[in-house]
Amino acid sequence: MEALRQRLETFARERDWEQFHSPKNLSMALIAEAAELVEHFQWLSEAQSEQLPAEKLEAVRMELADIQIYLIRLADRLGVDLIEAAWEKTAINEQRYPAERVRGDARRAAEYED
Amino acid sequence: MEALRQRLETFARERDWEQFHSPKNLSMALIAEAAELVEHFQWLSEAQSEQLPAEKLEAVRMELADIQIYLIRLADRLGVDLIEAAWEKTAINEQRYPAERVRGDARRAAEYED
Amino acid sequence: MEALRQRLETFARERDWEQFHSPKNLSMALIAEAAELVEHFQWLSEAQSEQLPAEKLEAVRMELADIQIYLIRLADRLGVDLIEAAWEKTAINEQRYPAERVRGDARRAAEYED
Amino acid sequence: MEALRQRLETFARERDWEQFHSPKNLSMALIAEAAELVEHFQWLSEAQSEQLPAEKLEAVRMELADIQIYLIRLADRLGVDLIEAAWEKTAINEQRYPAERVRGDARRAAEYED
Repeated sequence: MEALRQRLETFARERDWEQFHSPKNLSMALIAEAAELVEHFQWLSEAQSEQLPAEKLEAVRMELADIQIYLIRLADRLGVDLIEAAWEKTAINEQRYPAERVRGDARRAAEYED
Repeated sequence: MEALRQRLETFARERDWEQFHSPKNLSMALIAEAAELVEHFQWLSEAQSEQLPAEKLEAVRMELADIQIYLIRLADRLGVDLIEAAWEKTAINEQRYPAERVRGDARRAAEYED
Repeated sequence: MEALRQRLETFARERDWEQFHSPKNLSMALIAEAAELVEHFQWLSEAQSEQLPAEKLEAVRMELADIQIYLIRLADRLGVDLIEAAWEKTAINEQRYPAERVRGDARRAAEYED
Repeated sequence: MEALRQRLETFARERDWEQFHSPKNLSMALIAEAAELVEHFQWLSEAQSEQLPAEKLEAVRMELADIQIYLIRLADRLGVDLIEAAWEKTAINEQRYPAERVRGDARRAAEYED
């Protein structure tokens, strides 16, 4: 991921695009990509979303790539180590949702906290 | 990232949450997290978004973590290798936007394609 | 809706919030509200989303209100008549998707256009 | 808006699309449209977003229409009166953010509540 981070930074610098890549703007680009993903699934049933035809899976795969790319760029601009942050948040989630208490129940985090 | 993928899978399995983690549902969870990120930036100027106070930066860091976590889960459920996909998409972008042609110009991809 | 548009404008002016309500920022606020809506539905089945318990329905109702509010504000800042635009777009959709050709088939617009 | 609500219902019924229009799915369609709006603004400065060239303004106008359309559809499926809900929420906001206390300060609602 570090190699990818560098290549994406070079990509932006060579195109003089760093000026557009403020965290604010990158958060917008990221959610726009997330929405393209959502669009692929919006009229599918959950079961259909598990069994995408090959062509659609490839399109979805490229949307996941776009999200990952903007996520890396954004983390880079903010000086955040993504993988470290994700481990840390996972440890928090493991504490917050003890398996024996939440098994089979996916109510939103907000609702648990009540 | 592979170790993280496994831990997240175990996390979901131990809570019997795999049943909720259809790609359709995970795409919704992912965009909801992306929106929490956007919310942090919506009333800031671009310049302010570059210089977040420590407490806000930490909150943003945890949002990035949430997005990365759902992205890994979603890729896992679809059998996609995220980093490989991101490299592939980067190579495509390098072809699609030659530095000498797009320097300093960030019009949307859609507009380039006209 | 015109009375509501005026009251929302007054609301923003009295708080000196017009300075934050650029179309760019309002588009971010709008999608953040749309995501709060999505969050209510993300772990529900489609059938469950049709039969919300009263308390949840009320929460969803307030999210719809938030989206409507930002949509009115944004249209106002851009000088757009929302209802007129929605009629116009509906007429376009009726042309684009003739009932006899698309009955029962909800593939994305993008796919139709291929 | 009532006439528009009816026409949109007829549109869906004539195409046998009501089966796809669960509140869950409509929330996804709505956020996908909101993201198309965001995409128009992501690389613009706030000042540029106030002064869209005519062609771009027309494209943005059609995105606003799409959001309004899905919002009406979703409210219809949930039995919500959008305008009534928006008035109600506006009254709540007027209470929650007294002009004299929040003037010129757009920190997020969440932050006020601390």
